[in-house]
Amino acid sequence: MGRITVRRPVLRLSTSGALGSRPDTLAVEEPLEIRVAGKPLTITMRTPGHDFDLVAGFLAAEGVIGRAADLATMRYCADTEEQNTLDVVLAPGVPPPDDSVTRAFTTTSACGVCGKSSIEALRSDRPYELAGDPVRLTPELLAALPGRLREAQRVFDRTGGLHAAGLFGAGGELLAVREDVGRHNAVDKVVGWALRQGRLPLAGTVLMVSGRASFELTQKAMAAGVPVLAAVSAPSSLAVDLAADAGMTLVGFLRGETMNVYAGAERIGR
Amino acid sequence: MGRITVRRPVLRLSTSGALGSRPDTLAVEEPLEIRVAGKPLTITMRTPGHDFDLVAGFLAAEGVIGRAADLATMRYCADTEEQNTLDVVLAPGVPPPDDSVTRAFTTTSACGVCGKSSIEALRSDRPYELAGDPVRLTPELLAALPGRLREAQRVFDRTGGLHAAGLFGAGGELLAVREDVGRHNAVDKVVGWALRQGRLPLAGTVLMVSGRASFELTQKAMAAGVPVLAAVSAPSSLAVDLAADAGMTLVGFLRGETMNVYAGAERIGR
Repeated sequence: MGRITVRRPVLRLSTSGALGSRPDTLAVEEPLEIRVAGKPLTITMRTPGHDFDLVAGFLAAEGVIGRAADLATMRYCADTEEQNTLDVVLAPGVPPPDDSVTRAFTTTSACGVCGKSSIEALRSDRPYELAGDPVRLTPELLAALPGRLREAQRVFDRTGGLHAAGLFGAGGELLAVREDVGRHNAVDKVVGWALRQGRLPLAGTVLMVSGRASFELTQKAMAAGVPVLAAVSAPSSLAVDLAADAGMTLVGFLRGETMNVYAGAERIGR
Repeated sequence: MGRITVRRPVLRLSTSGALGSRPDTLAVEEPLEIRVAGKPLTITMRTPGHDFDLVAGFLAAEGVIGRAADLATMRYCADTEEQNTLDVVLAPGVPPPDDSVTRAFTTTSACGVCGKSSIEALRSDRPYELAGDPVRLTPELLAALPGRLREAQRVFDRTGGLHAAGLFGAGGELLAVREDVGRHNAVDKVVGWALRQGRLPLAGTVLMVSGRASFELTQKAMAAGVPVLAAVSAPSSLAVDLAADAGMTLVGFLRGETMNVYAGAERIGR
């Protein structure tokens, strides 16, 4: 695993004068180049660690792979000193990503055709049916998740610079937590972990994210079959539209004892 | 200008029961397809409004344009009902972006070659010299900026879902503020505004962002000639490395009366 944090000197100042110089702990951000069979696919800025999960989750979100068996091997490029290039070999019979699958076009599937409704365009890309997922959660269970996510976050408190994504079972038990400077990467790492464990689709689970719920995060949760997405902060309009359309429950502003339910409220009750 | 916020019904819950349904104000997120001379370049998920600034700033960050005169025309595609496709015509003599310039590869310039140092690779891409910028700021002036940015943010308080970027002069006066669901978009919008006003390079200014300072934001500030980048939250390791290398002042955790100076501390004093 790569370095997750690094220490750098920092000058601490206040309006009443200098408070002195001291070492500060920073979240590491480094580029990761993803190659498929030697061909560069995309580059993402990420926090090192759980790179295999990250790449598996990214490829799952892009629809390139759907299960562990679709991956033959993953290894770091031998020609680099730092572990910042990862080469994936897909299993025989798994079509390689076409040229349009890059990080740039993660969001393109929503609106590839000028004037086409973004939500409409997504319908055909949905591998799992979420609307039928019978999971039910109480407000108490949901209210307990942010605290559990924070407890499991080993790095955040030291740097203040990392987003977290946590996957919880229907009983509120933590299944996996991943951190990254990029919130989309944290979600990719969780989904990739699940894929490699043979757990997709993630029926009956809750994905909790430390920040806001964007369209991209909602799309990634949907692609992994997650029926409930919960966020500490606000969702965007398109995240709400997508969740409602996909039959996903979307909870925002999950803080303290209160929360806002933007879609799929039928899954929450006593 | 497009809709920046939208109202949706939300079910407000607490652990002690339902608090009722009410309309909630959400930040709008919609795709924007950027075309150059009719050819699709990239798609970004953004909050509508100031799209011309966004596109100009994006193209400046990518090194495609450097001044207002490099842009001949910008207009929305007529074949769409919604204003989500924007076509740019570059001035005669301005080379169109090559195929590698897409949002995916915004960060690629940092690490295009496997094993090459990211910071080293960036050196040749720097259009402006920051190290010589003589601007000096007091801690008092810096400490006042977050409050001014918040005051200028018209939408944040209603949705909690938007990032802001504000450009300030050396006297602390606000020059421009832009908001977006994507923090990179907020910065692109500010830089694009400046470019269209003929203000690049942004010598003697401070760019203040509401969230964290990533490599990408630091790179965009550098490409616009901004000598001081200030963030409410933490910087990443690569943001600090890039700022130090570029001669940029990087301030983080700018909250209340205190701040951390990660690079270029010589510009801050009384």
